[in-house]
Amino acid sequence: MFKTFGQHYLVEYIGCEADRIAFVGPVREALLRAAEESRATILETFFHQFEPKGVSGMLFIAESHFSIHTWPEDGYAAFDVLTCGRMEPEKAVESLRKSLGARDVRCRVVSRGYGPEGGSA
Amino acid sequence: MFKTFGQHYLVEYIGCEADRIAFVGPVREALLRAAEESRATILETFFHQFEPKGVSGMLFIAESHFSIHTWPEDGYAAFDVLTCGRMEPEKAVESLRKSLGARDVRCRVVSRGYGPEGGSA
Repeated sequence: MFKTFGQHYLVEYIGCEADRIAFVGPVREALLRAAEESRATILETFFHQFEPKGVSGMLFIAESHFSIHTWPEDGYAAFDVLTCGRMEPEKAVESLRKSLGARDVRCRVVSRGYGPEGGSA
Repeated sequence: MFKTFGQHYLVEYIGCEADRIAFVGPVREALLRAAEESRATILETFFHQFEPKGVSGMLFIAESHFSIHTWPEDGYAAFDVLTCGRMEPEKAVESLRKSLGARDVRCRVVSRGYGPEGGSA
């Protein structure tokens, strides 16, 4: 039996503008915009401020989740989207690139589930 | 410049006992136990019940996050740990395997960050 339950996008944002990823306010705004533009259905949202700077953020969506973790001192943000339904994750990736002012983006996509004899999808 | 910010564990639990992954109660208990056994430092926890069955769960930890999404009708759960600090993610993977009664486990580990000329780590 082969079964894929979703696609997991692992995204690296490089050379972000530090003031856009240091505090919850702008990161929340960016993540909500990315959800809207990718047609995700938001269920719940959660954000955590690290002191003095740095944010963890999470959206539970009907299609699974968005998460983001930021390292302002390095201009770096790690984003992931797990999606098992109708939405357009590439649009979320592009929306966040603009919002975070990232100089460069790297995106890997991993199928989630399992293959023949229980192997990874 | 080469920089790795964390390790992302993508874990497939196959052949789980349906009653252990259908509702928030046992999933929350399993995720908290996995955090404790892997020495993660929990900051905040969030769970969402899908109707009639199925759970999304998230722990913000000082080291980044745990997430889980379950498909009880398929006996399947997708788990991920992003860790950028001192903890023992393999212990979380094994703890959850026991708690969910999984018949099989598949685990992939992806370095998060960026490599020379901005490539993925």
